[in-house]
Amino acid sequence: MQELEFIDWIQGRSNFDATKVPVGPGDDCAIVRLGDNDLLVTTDQLLDGVHINLAEHGPRAAGRKVIARSLSDIASMAAVPLAAVATATLPRGFGESDAQELYRGMREIADEYHCPLVGGDVASWDGPLCLTSTIFGRRAGVTGGVEPALRSGAQVGDAICVTGVLGGAWKSTRHLEFKPRIAEAIELAICCRLRAMIDISDSLARDLQHICTASGVGAEINAADLPLNPDLADDEPAAIKAALHDGEDYELLFTVPQAWARKLCDRQPLATHITRIGTIIDATGLTLINPDGSRSELEPIGWEHGT
Amino acid sequence: MQELEFIDWIQGRSNFDATKVPVGPGDDCAIVRLGDNDLLVTTDQLLDGVHINLAEHGPRAAGRKVIARSLSDIASMAAVPLAAVATATLPRGFGESDAQELYRGMREIADEYHCPLVGGDVASWDGPLCLTSTIFGRRAGVTGGVEPALRSGAQVGDAICVTGVLGGAWKSTRHLEFKPRIAEAIELAICCRLRAMIDISDSLARDLQHICTASGVGAEINAADLPLNPDLADDEPAAIKAALHDGEDYELLFTVPQAWARKLCDRQPLATHITRIGTIIDATGLTLINPDGSRSELEPIGWEHGT
Repeated sequence: MQELEFIDWIQGRSNFDATKVPVGPGDDCAIVRLGDNDLLVTTDQLLDGVHINLAEHGPRAAGRKVIARSLSDIASMAAVPLAAVATATLPRGFGESDAQELYRGMREIADEYHCPLVGGDVASWDGPLCLTSTIFGRRAGVTGGVEPALRSGAQVGDAICVTGVLGGAWKSTRHLEFKPRIAEAIELAICCRLRAMIDISDSLARDLQHICTASGVGAEINAADLPLNPDLADDEPAAIKAALHDGEDYELLFTVPQAWARKLCDRQPLATHITRIGTIIDATGLTLINPDGSRSELEPIGWEHGT
Repeated sequence: MQELEFIDWIQGRSNFDATKVPVGPGDDCAIVRLGDNDLLVTTDQLLDGVHINLAEHGPRAAGRKVIARSLSDIASMAAVPLAAVATATLPRGFGESDAQELYRGMREIADEYHCPLVGGDVASWDGPLCLTSTIFGRRAGVTGGVEPALRSGAQVGDAICVTGVLGGAWKSTRHLEFKPRIAEAIELAICCRLRAMIDISDSLARDLQHICTASGVGAEINAADLPLNPDLADDEPAAIKAALHDGEDYELLFTVPQAWARKLCDRQPLATHITRIGTIIDATGLTLINPDGSRSELEPIGWEHGT
């Protein structure tokens, strides 16, 4: 069972009334109309042995991470979280204090992002821990005037930018402690001409490929410009590879017109550093410009969860 | 780990701004405000070996059931489904055709109820099949004028009514093929003075207890009036016990003023039969009036999934 192929198969069978469902499967959130409002929705799962190691990371980190991943999807649309629901399938014999820690992990991050946890479901079984979260969002802006950022808006000539540093998240605590970039995303959407955006969960290369496929464009990335994780600085080739393919960074990857990229990089208006790392081009696929100036194909591979 | 105690513990820690979250955990759906609209939200899980036996029932029935259970929660609020998202955690080695059958099961019931499946998440792991669905709804009525039906509105003197027949659902295919009572619930909410409503998932006794606890009342049930499953007619005491405690009926359990109950039972305005089975009383707990006229305590026990 190939998950990505299955998701493609599902998308091929989805058809919606665009007046009711402006955005269906295939972006970070779906968008559904409710009255005069856009309702954004994203759902994620967090599995012991796949997205977390419960024995090593503990229940509080698991609870935090499942909510944080969905918040990051809301961020990637430049939307505002409205509320969350979650389910927990607990291994039989899961202790009361562990269950409470799990809930505390969810609540701490939900409260921090003003995203009330309004409902859920709990069950026990003879299997490993399985958590899911579904988060709802609304458009940003006092009157909801900020258009959600989609994957499909990239244009040839756009600059490709990222927030933060990339690579090695899974080998540190960064995949557990990352801060969903809600405020940064809204600021970008309000203050500059944001064309396309996604959060980096699978990997820079794979998530950039998602933008390119949705937008019908290609991209080239300058390896020398990547904001490498300083913990990996001793081995630059390995650090570049990690930045391109590790995933779990939960940073924003976005495209803007070049003039906006220059302003953003000069003025650095966000609490988080912005780096220009490449250009959207009229091509198919991804190209890497290596530090020595040579070009190679950039394969859209990422971390395969649990494999 | 006692699930119900854990849920009580969570509810004790939930506090919401009522202007933003009019209804939090503890009803069939939460209600969140979005602009001028009420957004209703429910989430459920369906676990192999707990809520379904995959080997016996097959993936299509599993997909149908996880969506149908959430639709039944939307029905119990007398709301209209707006859209659904779902997650599937597949056992490693789950076949492509099984995955497609799972999706078809979800889509068939979602399409039947005009509830677009707008997003989801798929992963594989070394555990059993775990499905979740989150369905969100809106208020019924062209301009959303129909108040959602809560558990907390039952008043002393109300008649207690149910739709359909009760008992033995798990021993038949009824727990797989039930029809969520969306249309019936909306008609009840529009045409009569609906005071409190819930869908029967755990069991009549336990779900009635949920209404009584939320409303601060008690209830008495006339065993002789229960709409027993005719398949169990050979053994009346067993059929009564099944109707009270089996669960998985996914029928509507609701309270209305006595005069409305008489009209409903006389005129039978719904496609589904309505039966008056008891009365809300000023007491604590539930009382059963046995067929011989004697009274006994009705314990709020139900089917313990997976135990």
